[in-house]
Amino acid sequence: MGKVFVSVGMSLDGFIAPEGMDMAHADDPDYKDWMSLWMQLQHWVSEQQFFRRNLNLGEDGETGQDNAILEETFNRTGVSIMGRRMFDGGERFWPEEAPFHTPVFVLTHQVREPWERPGGTTFCFVNDGIESALDQARQAVGDRDIRIAGGADTIVQYLNAGLVDEFSIALAPVVLGGGTSLFEGVDRSRVRFEIDEAIHSPLVTHLRYVVGRP
Amino acid sequence: MGKVFVSVGMSLDGFIAPEGMDMAHADDPDYKDWMSLWMQLQHWVSEQQFFRRNLNLGEDGETGQDNAILEETFNRTGVSIMGRRMFDGGERFWPEEAPFHTPVFVLTHQVREPWERPGGTTFCFVNDGIESALDQARQAVGDRDIRIAGGADTIVQYLNAGLVDEFSIALAPVVLGGGTSLFEGVDRSRVRFEIDEAIHSPLVTHLRYVVGRP
Repeated sequence: MGKVFVSVGMSLDGFIAPEGMDMAHADDPDYKDWMSLWMQLQHWVSEQQFFRRNLNLGEDGETGQDNAILEETFNRTGVSIMGRRMFDGGERFWPEEAPFHTPVFVLTHQVREPWERPGGTTFCFVNDGIESALDQARQAVGDRDIRIAGGADTIVQYLNAGLVDEFSIALAPVVLGGGTSLFEGVDRSRVRFEIDEAIHSPLVTHLRYVVGRP
Repeated sequence: MGKVFVSVGMSLDGFIAPEGMDMAHADDPDYKDWMSLWMQLQHWVSEQQFFRRNLNLGEDGETGQDNAILEETFNRTGVSIMGRRMFDGGERFWPEEAPFHTPVFVLTHQVREPWERPGGTTFCFVNDGIESALDQARQAVGDRDIRIAGGADTIVQYLNAGLVDEFSIALAPVVLGGGTSLFEGVDRSRVRFEIDEAIHSPLVTHLRYVVGRP
């Protein structure tokens, strides 16, 4: 059976998104400088050839270890699961050809028909909780893995429920000073991280953990 | 001239000490479970032969990469600088033969004569600020390096003043859920981290950064 994994970018001070990066300020990138801080956090991604190809931005970009990791993460992902806030932000900012190219299960209270995008991304809206979403993901995933894409709330719910196998952090060498904390709410009586790997480039440090029970 | 460096243990969620680990609760290790959490954060250290020898706990312990890093950090340190709270906690908990074996400059408002301990540690109390303490450390250090030992307040003051050359984090695979944040107060307009190295063992991940100006 495929694995359930998290792969997320984090700042040195533990944030996966800067303060002010929310739907209320989507039109105001200068608000608390959120856009610039987000670009710093994601800088390593934006430099990679795979990212640029996937968004049809061109054929240039770096082709080293970071690019290979990005491509491997994409290729192993047969389904993504995300929370409503992440979807709302993405619905606004992703291109028409959304960058997933797989089914994506969205945790929401909204009842909505599946939404097919060009390029193979289909958003399916799940109203009955994280375990149901994971069951539906397992039906759809084939022999690839299931990515818990975000946001932090969704990741922490899956962690505390003991449903995550592998946890990867792309640790950017930036300090955000505030924002959405990745680990807030993790129940340490139910989640244990085992160090699996740490590798680095000049742009980012990749930390991989196996998740178990204490 | 020797380098000025930081080397500190941090949890996955960015804390260098758990909530409740303070002088008010020094007698109450069960308060918010601070002692157990501190032991988890420092677990990798307590397993090493060098640590055990340095505190006269015995000759056993691990002798691999983590032990070499611990020993190298000790050997390069000609002087340490610390804040008053770290000193107050240490005065209470360090053994009579304090584990520094060098001069230690303590930032404090208290006027106090130098305090010599058996084994070569001398605590010198500095009342006129971080730059004065660093000047005095440079006079005393010889050809070794100066360690900004902690706590977080002191580390952040030196970072923001542009006085730190190298920054090492021993990232423990634990979540503390609260406590003393390492990066709170870092002025990102004045401090830039460049990735230098990331290596890991089953116990801890060592991250090293070169510190510069943006």
